[in-house]
Amino acid sequence: MKLVIGDKNFSSWSMRPWILLKHFGIAFDEVLIPLYRPESKAKLLKLLPTSKVPCLTIDAGDVVWESLAVVETLAEAHTEQAMWPRDAIARAHARSVSAEMHVGFAALRENMPMDICKRATGHEATPEALANIACIEALWGDCLAKFDGPFLFGKSSIADAMFAPVVTRFISYGASLNDTSRAYCERVIELPAVVAWIADAREETKQ
Amino acid sequence: MKLVIGDKNFSSWSMRPWILLKHFGIAFDEVLIPLYRPESKAKLLKLLPTSKVPCLTIDAGDVVWESLAVVETLAEAHTEQAMWPRDAIARAHARSVSAEMHVGFAALRENMPMDICKRATGHEATPEALANIACIEALWGDCLAKFDGPFLFGKSSIADAMFAPVVTRFISYGASLNDTSRAYCERVIELPAVVAWIADAREETKQ
Repeated sequence: MKLVIGDKNFSSWSMRPWILLKHFGIAFDEVLIPLYRPESKAKLLKLLPTSKVPCLTIDAGDVVWESLAVVETLAEAHTEQAMWPRDAIARAHARSVSAEMHVGFAALRENMPMDICKRATGHEATPEALANIACIEALWGDCLAKFDGPFLFGKSSIADAMFAPVVTRFISYGASLNDTSRAYCERVIELPAVVAWIADAREETKQ
Repeated sequence: MKLVIGDKNFSSWSMRPWILLKHFGIAFDEVLIPLYRPESKAKLLKLLPTSKVPCLTIDAGDVVWESLAVVETLAEAHTEQAMWPRDAIARAHARSVSAEMHVGFAALRENMPMDICKRATGHEATPEALANIACIEALWGDCLAKFDGPFLFGKSSIADAMFAPVVTRFISYGASLNDTSRAYCERVIELPAVVAWIADAREETKQ
């Protein structure tokens, strides 16, 4: 199994399946293509039928792309792991918030692009990005209250992987958060798989 | 099981799970909330914890929202039906293109909003919308060639439901398509579930 990803400092979509695989201890080969170089597009196209990262090779020449499709495929192939919550109600809720993250919060993504090593504490969020942050805090608060934490659906799941890049953005741009959200961010950032990704991002930006 | 949807003429996200349920003959109660009235938001909030449609009630007070999360939940609850293709490679591919539809083609969606009863043959598509159309045609062409048609993955699946609103847009705005795409659009538009949705949309706009 091979996962093709972009720069660890920048590619928020790549981060999601990578930390999921690491968190659940599933072995894979990693192929990193830096995305912002003149040769990037050609390299990606040579490697992948679509030029999109993340992309998981599941068989000779057969691939799955789009982070949500990748994580669904992984969850289905590894039912021995509770990548989605085992409980049907929790799983439906986890799928809903994960799909919401996949498709939404465009203002936040534009205003606070993932740049893990960045520290921009004086960053001014746009009103639209602030509205996105409020939505995310409400969503996190609901999940943490309903499913008793410490992660969104109790144990760490795909839903936390989907929001992990948002956590790094909140830290990079010094987002003002309530106590519940701040504590959740701290728990996510300390997950060994997230620690490992961030360490790699730091190494990468030194080069 | 109750599916809360928006106007059939306009709510492309609502169309997806509705036609999927109808196509696979699964009984459900439909609750339609017209989305563009002063009281719409209040009605939605009264009915749903999030105010988003489509939303599926799966248990007393427990809901799943976001079209992709709804269809994954339905597929999992109805394994007797091949909502996703049975073959793992085809399924991974179907999930990829469905997620791509879920998250992408924003220019097309903005330039050609779903309006089933509309006929705007003189419509001028923006260059970005035309680029989206080219991507969709390439994606359809790949699937139809690889999986032998008549639908994207052989038999009709979630992937076709995800693209059905795009088919109605292409018809409404007179998009210029290649023969393969045009024939695929004709097959989709003739699916009994799609015919039923469009008939309801026509009734609705007469009111």
